[in-house]
Amino acid sequence: MAKALKKNNPKKELRVDGERLYKALHDLGEVGAYKDESTGIVGVNRLALSEADGAGRRKVVSWMKELGLSVSVDQIGNVYAERRGETDLPPVMMGSHIDSVPTAGRFDGCLGVLGALEVMRTLSESGLTTKRPLVAAFFTEEEGCRFGTDMLGSAVATGRIPLEAAYALKDAQGLTVKGELEKTGFLGPEAVGRRKPHAYLECHIEQGPSLRHDGFEIGVVTGVQAISWQELTIVGKSAHAGTTPMEFRKDAGVAAARINLKLREMIASGMFGKGMRATMGVNRPHPGMVNVVPGRVVCTVDLRHPEDGFMEEVERELVAFYKQVEKDEGVSISWRQTARTAMAPFSDEVQSVVEGAANELGLSNTPILSGAGHDAQEWSRACKTAMVFVPGEYDGISHNPREFSTLKQCADGVNVLLGAALTLTED
Amino acid sequence: MAKALKKNNPKKELRVDGERLYKALHDLGEVGAYKDESTGIVGVNRLALSEADGAGRRKVVSWMKELGLSVSVDQIGNVYAERRGETDLPPVMMGSHIDSVPTAGRFDGCLGVLGALEVMRTLSESGLTTKRPLVAAFFTEEEGCRFGTDMLGSAVATGRIPLEAAYALKDAQGLTVKGELEKTGFLGPEAVGRRKPHAYLECHIEQGPSLRHDGFEIGVVTGVQAISWQELTIVGKSAHAGTTPMEFRKDAGVAAARINLKLREMIASGMFGKGMRATMGVNRPHPGMVNVVPGRVVCTVDLRHPEDGFMEEVERELVAFYKQVEKDEGVSISWRQTARTAMAPFSDEVQSVVEGAANELGLSNTPILSGAGHDAQEWSRACKTAMVFVPGEYDGISHNPREFSTLKQCADGVNVLLGAALTLTED
Repeated sequence: MAKALKKNNPKKELRVDGERLYKALHDLGEVGAYKDESTGIVGVNRLALSEADGAGRRKVVSWMKELGLSVSVDQIGNVYAERRGETDLPPVMMGSHIDSVPTAGRFDGCLGVLGALEVMRTLSESGLTTKRPLVAAFFTEEEGCRFGTDMLGSAVATGRIPLEAAYALKDAQGLTVKGELEKTGFLGPEAVGRRKPHAYLECHIEQGPSLRHDGFEIGVVTGVQAISWQELTIVGKSAHAGTTPMEFRKDAGVAAARINLKLREMIASGMFGKGMRATMGVNRPHPGMVNVVPGRVVCTVDLRHPEDGFMEEVERELVAFYKQVEKDEGVSISWRQTARTAMAPFSDEVQSVVEGAANELGLSNTPILSGAGHDAQEWSRACKTAMVFVPGEYDGISHNPREFSTLKQCADGVNVLLGAALTLTED
Repeated sequence: MAKALKKNNPKKELRVDGERLYKALHDLGEVGAYKDESTGIVGVNRLALSEADGAGRRKVVSWMKELGLSVSVDQIGNVYAERRGETDLPPVMMGSHIDSVPTAGRFDGCLGVLGALEVMRTLSESGLTTKRPLVAAFFTEEEGCRFGTDMLGSAVATGRIPLEAAYALKDAQGLTVKGELEKTGFLGPEAVGRRKPHAYLECHIEQGPSLRHDGFEIGVVTGVQAISWQELTIVGKSAHAGTTPMEFRKDAGVAAARINLKLREMIASGMFGKGMRATMGVNRPHPGMVNVVPGRVVCTVDLRHPEDGFMEEVERELVAFYKQVEKDEGVSISWRQTARTAMAPFSDEVQSVVEGAANELGLSNTPILSGAGHDAQEWSRACKTAMVFVPGEYDGISHNPREFSTLKQCADGVNVLLGAALTLTED
């Protein structure tokens, strides 16, 4: 297809307007903006279905309508803006999310949504009509920060999570998804599960250091790695740090430290394949006083692996290690799985289309596995799917006001999105 | 002296009233009582110079006055109740504290204060007068939980901490020691530094498992071990747990885990003498989210050692290890000393008197080093000093509503206090 476009086709000369895209990113970033106290940098707090998210949604919908797109909202608040094609064949959908973590930057999710709109704008300006329709979409509660389940809107739209279960989810204040959809005016009429795109594309910041570090302008995303989260409760015995001989102790903090270091040892051992990542992000000793041996620790383990088989081995090895630590330290360790997704491989065909579009533009590119979850992994079950990653500055810091990609990095990614969408719409 | 008392002396037959002592402990425990939510057990919250501490102080002072003792309050709020002797020689002082940690039991400190009053009551009932005067005292802010410096009242009274420095200390709300002394009515007129006792005795719960475990009824305390507290701030780089390859990480949580385990390795190595204890009680990773590599950790190290020379070696080794961890992990580690006291050895002579009193009563006893700090370590610089420890149930749990010593354990300790005080007052 890419070859066919290369010759005799005005579409291949199309380029998005980077300035306009970047301005839209910054305009949307004003909604829910706050000043980070420690750095003075302006961040974004647009938790899903909050007042700020509602305002952001209305802004994006107004832009969709300015472009003459046909906007509809489904029962879980996902918003779809359709541009007619020459045919009524299933559309090529481009999307992402505009909800954010509480301490976000301006790029995560928004680049994919505003990038899709910039693609529409570019096509409208050139007066071109594609063979298949194009859809620009944004999905509800991708972050999972408010109601506890990430990729919620796209998971409901593609059937992994039942609508009623999603409606019943509550935030920390006990407010439900359904109530907050009503309150923000985004409890739509369109039946979930109705959308069956021909293909799905998502442009996103990498949220990691690799592309920038290795000098690539574009990442052709091969899939989303398997994710396993555990929350551990380690119960030992709190005791006076001065008066309790070492042999009487059941130090839950020491047990947590051993598990933290075990994670690294497992990676270093090479026995669990390539690409394993592991993190203890939460570690809360109780009572948490300088002179008290911790009697209880709540901590978490975040595991990532590009191969499901190895992920299972990692989990088995860890559980066996918990037993060993229980025995050695006289503690008891209970754990629950708080998230678990299998490796989500993307379509080889769509990856080739993305790679072709990048090559067409002369942009250096590399296959890359996504370390983070994305709406695309949900849509990959519904249709052929791939993603376009763009590099981030400052080692790709994300979920942080310092999150930053340059105008060129953003424009490059959206030009690849445009090129890939044009190819797929000719299918 | 003990021998002289043994014969021809009605004093050697004296015994305190254990029931009365235990009732006083429970009556004082009503002041600042609260119900622990998780266990339903009643605990005590009587932070120094709080309203509850003020009420507790007034109750103890009323008991002192009922006994006809001469009560005076010094400039740092220490309260002294004197019983006349046959002479005006320097008195034998018995004391401890009634302030508590926020989650206390009824015994810590109170046993020493109410035990001293029970000694007075026993003597009054028998109509006996001692050669030297006796003083029962309680000291301000022994716990250090409110204003950050433990043994505050006794340290000011014995000259280690200047009065003005103590006055200026603030609690978390910015309230000063001086202001809170005024508010509770315990900013007394007596000059600090005026008291020069002949000897100082303190009866206290062990707050550890050893006496109970080894089957001794009384501990003859040989001194208070050296204490060193450090607060560490480890700065790494917060990063996405899914997208950041292991080789890009600067995980402050891993650095803290390594330091925690290093403490145990040092003890196990045997290279730092006998009796070293070490604890990481505080460990606060930031931002503390399941999927974020900790970019900063604040943690603490609590070191105890019976030998000052080894304590210095332990500190040197640890600081060298921090440098190693900085290098290995790409983090920076800063630390500050938040407490540091040298080993405080008690008087051999007073230890012998305590041991003699225990033997006289037929109570099994053993020399024991105190793992916790006590007012006695301050008074040990002003006069010859020792302490009497009584066992605690439940592995000697303390700073906890479950803290518990039986009526007999308490009465045994206070009978030893009585016997030792009587011996010392004949000096």
